[in-house]
Amino acid sequence: MRITLVPTVREIEKDVLLNKSAVMFDILRASSTISTVFANGCKRVLPVEEVADAFAVAQTLPENTYILGGERGAVKLPGFHLGNSPLEYQPDIVRDKTVILTTTNGTRAIRRTAEGSGPVLIGSLLNASAVAQKLLEMNQDIVLVCAGTRGKFSLEDTLAAGRVILEIVKRIGTGNKDLTKDPVPSADIYLDEVPILSENDLVLEDAALAALRLAEYYAQNPLQALQDSLHGQKLVQLGLRQDLTYCAQVNLFDVVPVYQDGVISVEID
Amino acid sequence: MRITLVPTVREIEKDVLLNKSAVMFDILRASSTISTVFANGCKRVLPVEEVADAFAVAQTLPENTYILGGERGAVKLPGFHLGNSPLEYQPDIVRDKTVILTTTNGTRAIRRTAEGSGPVLIGSLLNASAVAQKLLEMNQDIVLVCAGTRGKFSLEDTLAAGRVILEIVKRIGTGNKDLTKDPVPSADIYLDEVPILSENDLVLEDAALAALRLAEYYAQNPLQALQDSLHGQKLVQLGLRQDLTYCAQVNLFDVVPVYQDGVISVEID
Repeated sequence: MRITLVPTVREIEKDVLLNKSAVMFDILRASSTISTVFANGCKRVLPVEEVADAFAVAQTLPENTYILGGERGAVKLPGFHLGNSPLEYQPDIVRDKTVILTTTNGTRAIRRTAEGSGPVLIGSLLNASAVAQKLLEMNQDIVLVCAGTRGKFSLEDTLAAGRVILEIVKRIGTGNKDLTKDPVPSADIYLDEVPILSENDLVLEDAALAALRLAEYYAQNPLQALQDSLHGQKLVQLGLRQDLTYCAQVNLFDVVPVYQDGVISVEID
Repeated sequence: MRITLVPTVREIEKDVLLNKSAVMFDILRASSTISTVFANGCKRVLPVEEVADAFAVAQTLPENTYILGGERGAVKLPGFHLGNSPLEYQPDIVRDKTVILTTTNGTRAIRRTAEGSGPVLIGSLLNASAVAQKLLEMNQDIVLVCAGTRGKFSLEDTLAAGRVILEIVKRIGTGNKDLTKDPVPSADIYLDEVPILSENDLVLEDAALAALRLAEYYAQNPLQALQDSLHGQKLVQLGLRQDLTYCAQVNLFDVVPVYQDGVISVEID
């Protein structure tokens, strides 16, 4: 099992997702919100890219069966029931409902990831352990896609991806070979492709390994990472500090939302 | 002062380098070798992209005044005096000489970085502190460019960039605002651009901050990072473990090689 990390969604190369398990992270706040709505009993989430699409989808559904949620520039949209704060999506509001969700970055990132792959898992700190467990059950190579912020590397998404890796490593150990202890193989095994160096079942590419180290660095205080990040600081400026505190919680619940064919749902075991 | 990190040289956007101090890192092994040759008394390095160019440049120079050095696939080139191991470039060989250097990735990365900027500093763990000091003297926004490996994120280059940031932070502290202690500003300061959040003189963008955390994580054992990286593992497979041990040394000497107009040199203070 090989883990690749794509630092921003715009860096996805088509083939990288082929026959692999894909996870998308946009933890401030789309993927944290999506995890939360399912933990609170929501039936399904329909992620749409444009605000107009959200209203169009709503018109096809019976009244009182859906919630219109989302943001632009981190602010709730006119005519919508809710914004993009996971704290708004309380059980009494979302239970058995359909959430139609559109966000600046996250809903687009989900669809972009899905273009090159099968189902896309939705990852966050809140459900990191559950995502890790699911990935191990799927037993394929893994691609962790960070949405990023404005097309650039984001600290918080990489942290969450690293946390999922940490949960995997806890379960099966890392396979990156400790070459300090092994005999040096002969030079003729040098290949033009990056070799599989592992003798067991897990190889972390460099970006995945860096994410793991980031998760280890912040293990005792993931909230600090969210506060260190420029996007986190912007949310605090908007008065949304509580969202950071909420999204920084690790392994709060066991749901693994899965996007497929336009719909996000959770399997009932 | 704002620090931007470009994770791989192919991600350089033209404007990002404008009016900024640029540093290029390819620590396994081009930038470590370049630092070493100057520490050992070399007069100048001429980085060239193609092997044919190296021979062509050599023909313009008097005999016994130059060294042909470099590699393809980490292996020394036919007809060259030396490969790309810094350990080959001993003082008695390089003193007062011109080194003509061509490597798979590093020499190209230097020229690519220079296209959008003025002079390019050559950074490595070996000269991290000296590079940091130089950047503070230049007193401009900073762009740290990691060469990467085969177009992908490389752990070792990011570590070295993070080490330079750590040396800067040691000197002047980080300016990323600690919002846990400050009052929350009103929402109307929210801008569509990433804001300058610092009250003092240093802002780390997310990728730069992640590199800093990586450097802190590996501070006690930078060699481990080089051994963790896939490129480092390949060099070990080739029997070049000693190169990793050498390149993992931090602040071994004070030289800051600077590339400008096709030539790398060091200023004599």
